[in-house]
Amino acid sequence: MSLRTVEQFLSGLRDGREVYYRGQRVRDVTEHPELGMAARHAAIDFQLAEDPKLQELATRREGNAVYSTYYHIPRCTQDLLDRSKLIETGTALGGTLVLLIKEIGTDALFALMRLLARAGETQALERVRTLYRRYRDGDLALAVAQTDAKGDRSKRPSEQLDPDLNVRVVEKRSDGIVVRGAKVHTSCSPYVDEIIVLPSRSMGAGDEPWSLAFAVPVHSPGLRLYASDFLHGTDDPFTRPISTKHKMIETLTVFEDVFVPWERVFFHDRPDLAGSAALGFVEYHRFTAVSYKLPLLDALVGSAISIAQANGIERAGHVRDKLTWLAGYAETVRALVELAALRCEIVDGFACPHVFTTNLAKWTFARDFHRAIEIVQDLAGGLLVTGPSGADWDSSEVRPVLEKYLRAAWPAERRLAMLNLISELTTRLYGGYQAVLAVHAEGSLEAEKMAMLRSYDAKRAQGLAMLLAGLASDEK
Amino acid sequence: MSLRTVEQFLSGLRDGREVYYRGQRVRDVTEHPELGMAARHAAIDFQLAEDPKLQELATRREGNAVYSTYYHIPRCTQDLLDRSKLIETGTALGGTLVLLIKEIGTDALFALMRLLARAGETQALERVRTLYRRYRDGDLALAVAQTDAKGDRSKRPSEQLDPDLNVRVVEKRSDGIVVRGAKVHTSCSPYVDEIIVLPSRSMGAGDEPWSLAFAVPVHSPGLRLYASDFLHGTDDPFTRPISTKHKMIETLTVFEDVFVPWERVFFHDRPDLAGSAALGFVEYHRFTAVSYKLPLLDALVGSAISIAQANGIERAGHVRDKLTWLAGYAETVRALVELAALRCEIVDGFACPHVFTTNLAKWTFARDFHRAIEIVQDLAGGLLVTGPSGADWDSSEVRPVLEKYLRAAWPAERRLAMLNLISELTTRLYGGYQAVLAVHAEGSLEAEKMAMLRSYDAKRAQGLAMLLAGLASDEK
Amino acid sequence: MSLRTVEQFLSGLRDGREVYYRGQRVRDVTEHPELGMAARHAAIDFQLAEDPKLQELATRREGNAVYSTYYHIPRCTQDLLDRSKLIETGTALGGTLVLLIKEIGTDALFALMRLLARAGETQALERVRTLYRRYRDGDLALAVAQTDAKGDRSKRPSEQLDPDLNVRVVEKRSDGIVVRGAKVHTSCSPYVDEIIVLPSRSMGAGDEPWSLAFAVPVHSPGLRLYASDFLHGTDDPFTRPISTKHKMIETLTVFEDVFVPWERVFFHDRPDLAGSAALGFVEYHRFTAVSYKLPLLDALVGSAISIAQANGIERAGHVRDKLTWLAGYAETVRALVELAALRCEIVDGFACPHVFTTNLAKWTFARDFHRAIEIVQDLAGGLLVTGPSGADWDSSEVRPVLEKYLRAAWPAERRLAMLNLISELTTRLYGGYQAVLAVHAEGSLEAEKMAMLRSYDAKRAQGLAMLLAGLASDEK
Amino acid sequence: MSLRTVEQFLSGLRDGREVYYRGQRVRDVTEHPELGMAARHAAIDFQLAEDPKLQELATRREGNAVYSTYYHIPRCTQDLLDRSKLIETGTALGGTLVLLIKEIGTDALFALMRLLARAGETQALERVRTLYRRYRDGDLALAVAQTDAKGDRSKRPSEQLDPDLNVRVVEKRSDGIVVRGAKVHTSCSPYVDEIIVLPSRSMGAGDEPWSLAFAVPVHSPGLRLYASDFLHGTDDPFTRPISTKHKMIETLTVFEDVFVPWERVFFHDRPDLAGSAALGFVEYHRFTAVSYKLPLLDALVGSAISIAQANGIERAGHVRDKLTWLAGYAETVRALVELAALRCEIVDGFACPHVFTTNLAKWTFARDFHRAIEIVQDLAGGLLVTGPSGADWDSSEVRPVLEKYLRAAWPAERRLAMLNLISELTTRLYGGYQAVLAVHAEGSLEAEKMAMLRSYDAKRAQGLAMLLAGLASDEK
Repeated sequence: MSLRTVEQFLSGLRDGREVYYRGQRVRDVTEHPELGMAARHAAIDFQLAEDPKLQELATRREGNAVYSTYYHIPRCTQDLLDRSKLIETGTALGGTLVLLIKEIGTDALFALMRLLARAGETQALERVRTLYRRYRDGDLALAVAQTDAKGDRSKRPSEQLDPDLNVRVVEKRSDGIVVRGAKVHTSCSPYVDEIIVLPSRSMGAGDEPWSLAFAVPVHSPGLRLYASDFLHGTDDPFTRPISTKHKMIETLTVFEDVFVPWERVFFHDRPDLAGSAALGFVEYHRFTAVSYKLPLLDALVGSAISIAQANGIERAGHVRDKLTWLAGYAETVRALVELAALRCEIVDGFACPHVFTTNLAKWTFARDFHRAIEIVQDLAGGLLVTGPSGADWDSSEVRPVLEKYLRAAWPAERRLAMLNLISELTTRLYGGYQAVLAVHAEGSLEAEKMAMLRSYDAKRAQGLAMLLAGLASDEK
Repeated sequence: MSLRTVEQFLSGLRDGREVYYRGQRVRDVTEHPELGMAARHAAIDFQLAEDPKLQELATRREGNAVYSTYYHIPRCTQDLLDRSKLIETGTALGGTLVLLIKEIGTDALFALMRLLARAGETQALERVRTLYRRYRDGDLALAVAQTDAKGDRSKRPSEQLDPDLNVRVVEKRSDGIVVRGAKVHTSCSPYVDEIIVLPSRSMGAGDEPWSLAFAVPVHSPGLRLYASDFLHGTDDPFTRPISTKHKMIETLTVFEDVFVPWERVFFHDRPDLAGSAALGFVEYHRFTAVSYKLPLLDALVGSAISIAQANGIERAGHVRDKLTWLAGYAETVRALVELAALRCEIVDGFACPHVFTTNLAKWTFARDFHRAIEIVQDLAGGLLVTGPSGADWDSSEVRPVLEKYLRAAWPAERRLAMLNLISELTTRLYGGYQAVLAVHAEGSLEAEKMAMLRSYDAKRAQGLAMLLAGLASDEK
Repeated sequence: MSLRTVEQFLSGLRDGREVYYRGQRVRDVTEHPELGMAARHAAIDFQLAEDPKLQELATRREGNAVYSTYYHIPRCTQDLLDRSKLIETGTALGGTLVLLIKEIGTDALFALMRLLARAGETQALERVRTLYRRYRDGDLALAVAQTDAKGDRSKRPSEQLDPDLNVRVVEKRSDGIVVRGAKVHTSCSPYVDEIIVLPSRSMGAGDEPWSLAFAVPVHSPGLRLYASDFLHGTDDPFTRPISTKHKMIETLTVFEDVFVPWERVFFHDRPDLAGSAALGFVEYHRFTAVSYKLPLLDALVGSAISIAQANGIERAGHVRDKLTWLAGYAETVRALVELAALRCEIVDGFACPHVFTTNLAKWTFARDFHRAIEIVQDLAGGLLVTGPSGADWDSSEVRPVLEKYLRAAWPAERRLAMLNLISELTTRLYGGYQAVLAVHAEGSLEAEKMAMLRSYDAKRAQGLAMLLAGLASDEK
Repeated sequence: MSLRTVEQFLSGLRDGREVYYRGQRVRDVTEHPELGMAARHAAIDFQLAEDPKLQELATRREGNAVYSTYYHIPRCTQDLLDRSKLIETGTALGGTLVLLIKEIGTDALFALMRLLARAGETQALERVRTLYRRYRDGDLALAVAQTDAKGDRSKRPSEQLDPDLNVRVVEKRSDGIVVRGAKVHTSCSPYVDEIIVLPSRSMGAGDEPWSLAFAVPVHSPGLRLYASDFLHGTDDPFTRPISTKHKMIETLTVFEDVFVPWERVFFHDRPDLAGSAALGFVEYHRFTAVSYKLPLLDALVGSAISIAQANGIERAGHVRDKLTWLAGYAETVRALVELAALRCEIVDGFACPHVFTTNLAKWTFARDFHRAIEIVQDLAGGLLVTGPSGADWDSSEVRPVLEKYLRAAWPAERRLAMLNLISELTTRLYGGYQAVLAVHAEGSLEAEKMAMLRSYDAKRAQGLAMLLAGLASDEK
């Protein structure tokens, strides 16, 4: 049990995995200009564990052995607070972009262990535990593939024209199963070691073939990753201070008759477990999500305050009003994240963030994110889309003009640096990426609302209403 | 040091105090139909301390002596959580209406003690302490008069046509001062023992006469209370299940040359202390406020769920959406109240609720309260304003008609009870009262926003923005 | 064909009608303190027709005969603009409360005539026309009873435990039908001459008994009106400047085996007509509704501006921001009302307000009304609920105190008059009444949204999207 | 007086103008990959005038001569409706991107003519008229440079560290003036014939040097255009169906001692005219703005409906709710644009769109635009940022995988086309561009609010409030 270096992590990715980018098979993801940048962004995870100032947060010891804090099963409130802090710290180092190569995988592992323990599925539980120890001890990087391609949203898996639109078992063999189908939105898959596959919805009778969970190495034969090029763009750190250094890649993850040996199958043909697995995962994962949103929110509030100063408008009434709203929005999310840990429920030795509070945090974050973007753009001004390029700034002929005319209460260089950060965060591709993530990642706004209503304990409120109305609570 | 009974409290109010109601001097407030009801509502405070189930929460011991928990100076997080719980419990027993006869007074006392200790005003501090002990040991009831009549809001106290529009010192004598002027919105003053008077704003040079704080018994000569009759109405518990039992009274509180002996003067001629006293008070008092809003929010959520069931619409998509919003709104306020205590700052032995978080809670409560009202009215239906009266229900001729035609998924009796509760909470006088309080009590929404921005610590957020923009934080 | 006087109208109400108020049968509604006030409020309709300055707007001529403009069938845009102006004018004279004794009835008549003409139901059409001429020529006052008691909202009429929860035919005779059941929220019924009864929803096979429309005189045997006392209250024009003079009454309208002769039956056993009748009515009636909301909106904007001046805050940034929002809100509704007339569709000689635009106006009004209330309360201040009573003001002892201390940038008398108007409009019973009407009258917000989506013509928008996406519109 | 062809327009741009792009001087803007695309986008204006189906809308005749409708001075409502329709039509042909090479220039000319006529500045008026005729008869393309570089927003022009931060007169000569300074956000300047320069704010005593208005050819010596590269990107019409064909370019427009002969100077040293010129321009220009926003709104609504169908979710309750909101939002803007023309004020022969209604339309558009973006992203799904690239789609190996797995209720090809349109409109650079324009172009949201309050006629509303409060309007 020991930690890997950045180099060990990167060299582990050169294993013949089948990754496609912009129509081309990628031979070595670490050498690829875009995928390699994403891999190096993820590798901050390993740097962090080597940083003397962060080691205490980032690593845990068991006897002489040391392992990544991410793999530490949360047993109490403090474990959850530490985990949240670590996620926030990594994301801040990642320039507001989450690292995610251990966060999401451990969310899945914790959820599976809890579920199978509660369900009394001892054999399956043992399989998860064995893999968990292998991952932890090998300091592996993990992705989770959950959202199926789905097809027509108004139909169940079995009703789709093509049964492969949701990942399913196509063959059962003595040594394992063969799976086919596709998952979408799989983050980081091109540059992790293993992928954990979970169902994306509750299942019922007739849905047996689609009711399964398992894990596979990324280099498994038949596993093909089609990477999105969304953050692709010409290099220009002047106007893209974040995304020229930090990047996350999602894939369409296709299982073309991939063989999965039994020891990697957590369950199959189990509609009764599918929904709980999906739900149990997001209960951990939304806590991860709201933790990693915090640096993004801080960056928005901080850049809004800075640009108001830079433009010389920070004392105007409407500006103060907008800054107050921004601070209130960001700090409400932060408060709810903290409280989700403080209110955790400890069951069977697993500390789970308080479900309602976690969803409340996520809902608060998601439903006002676009309003936050609007305010920051409002304070920054039109130069967000009419400002100069890095080439302009580098030109000895043009720069003096910019320095003369684009200064305000701050010199042009500092003001443009802040404007470009804001343009990146709110207006350019990275801003669009974060905006869509706000609405869709870790479950849509609608999914969060359903989770909130499901986990809301109405007893106290309805009891009081009944009492005030002079009614007994138990009759109808 | 011992607790008073309800009867002792009420008999203490028969002291010749000068109270006016609907144009008439009131001889005995406890006998008055409206003021008496308000006094008995407030007296729940004393009942609570006698209730074996609540004694542990409501009382504290010091040696053999016992005193009301309200008078316990918060020294730690748990003290604040207990205080918040007690306020919430009293308010729930008060049918969503706060009791307030010790809450607000102790908010003022704690703030004054903190302020004078920090300012090194030892003599003044000792005066406050002496009064504090007398109040605590005598289990007295207190009001706080803060908001001045003010006059033209665009002018300072000294610029008003009439200098009495803000309470001021008109004479200094060897044994004390004489004060004149008026305060508005003084809650509970007709049925408490003493009134603490605080400045309502920051003061500057030239504002000396208006920069004072003191305490007086309600029966002080020259002190006149003009009570509002806002919740006045014909008795009908059918449609007014709360306000026929529970009531709070505010007064225009006029100081017609009231003499205040030195031992009751905390400071005067001190513009430098005025703003801090005003602010320090609301720092405690907004925590009281958000604590006592919780039962109101619970009542709204609980009645919304109940009426959705009663009407048979609780499974409709838009209804679930609205219930989710309501629960999310109410629970965000509750979460922030809890966190304001958990994040408390302990200075000089005083635990003070976290200022930013408290204001965040209050702002969250206030800015969406009308939206909550709208949703509850939406779910309840038009019968809120077209439904039957209590006299209809009592009529043997009419009731069977109502029973036949106003049933839905619940029988008419239960459905009407819930509808009437909602009408009271959202649509009738009590609803209007709570709506205006949401916007104005304990400082307006605009005041909360200013407090938020003032107490927001921008360091982390701005530091991150600077880092991401490649700028050093310390240069400009 | 001639106009009636106020006295003729009132005396026509003394016809033995069966009206109940607060549990008591009312012998003469015109003599009753509350119902009589409501009747006199409605009678403004007749005063208006006599007012020389308003006659041109309020009356129409046909040869030598004169009749109320309300009965004029709109044939063109100008007719709709005139009708809207008349409704607005009457409502402004009614102190922001609509008169409604001809508006709603003619909405129903126009809709029935259009529907039956289009459906080729010549006999039924002739019945409506005959009644229409009788009403117009006799200058009668009409109510419309549409919303059924309904029972459990999750069930259809035929599924209810009690079939009478929706009005239905219980017997067919050679000379007519016998109906039983109850309608709720019937406005003005105690003081009109006739009631038109319409279905409240679309019907299907199995719903025949509930699929009917007819008209009856209010004094029909078996017709019982149970009036709500919602705006009931002690007289005090100081704090209730509107509702001590103006009142509208709604009833639970019970048909206890009421006989309806054939010439008054528009259709029965016609599920195919029920939905169209319901919808056709609201298409006219929502235009009436948005027209009569305009004075209420003006009163809110105007009182907000006035109280900001009275308090001396009208130049503060946040105050200007709020006044701008209020003006923008009110004027958007006004603009859409105007445009709904300008865009009217003329079919078979009937000009009908543009359906989508009318619903857009109603939706705009309804979804932000509570926000408007909040803003006006915010600008007015806490005196809305802590201010003096009329008795205080009338007291020679108290009034000087109020005059001294409650002045601001305006003298106390003027400031209090404006505060009391605002309290009435936003905070007291009348405010609650209007708030619930905003959400529920003329169809709930949800109903408006459905009507909007149904009447939205997506062709232009979707055509452009298809073109931009490079797709042909007609394939899928 | 005759129309130019596209080729004539483009060749007119080869005049030695000094344009910089990404740090490089551009020799021929028509040959440049990015600027040339923008020029060809603008040239749609000339194509349109040649299109037989659009000629009637796009051109006007005067005797035998023909000229562009843009140059037609609006004299009546119909002229404004036609102008609005033409702007909308051109923008729809431009793929939701306005053409703007005559719209904005004529807005400025109309405003200047109105202002100078009213001010009795006959000589200046004649100068404008002469230029107007030359532009119209030569069918020229115009830009308007209004927003100054400004510097520190908390300071006036004369208080800035560098007086050149606002464009000013540095020398007055017998034959004209010499100007220096910079304007920002000048749209289309690299590919128009002339630039009209207006003040960007009201001026006062001491602001004389900055109080000027004039026009210059783009190739004037000393005039330098520094173009923003914001919409720059690699070519890929698959994911960028709009911005690979349509583009608008803004510049930092620097006047390095540019000589302006007197016949091109409209006024100088006239603080009294500066504010009116700025305001008068935006009164026309905001009407242009709201007209050209309509295709963008249609595209959002239409693509939202389409993607809901494509995903198979169009019948879900929350989806219908969101589509209703979108349609309501877009149609409110459209309604207000129409009404701004219908309510136009005709003064001195100039029809001017109704100022309050125009600002109401713009405010309605701007304050909810980000909410609209959020909803469209919500309905579309995460593939907006995780979907395939054009290279993927072009690959014979990858496309079949995408066709199999990315189909839903629509085939993958059609669904992806719609998703990519939405990604372009909401999430990628073009979406960010439009979002910032929504908040900042044609005056910020705050500027619109000020314009609304200034142009709101409070008489009716305040008069009604006074009447209801029993107060005379004229006393205070």
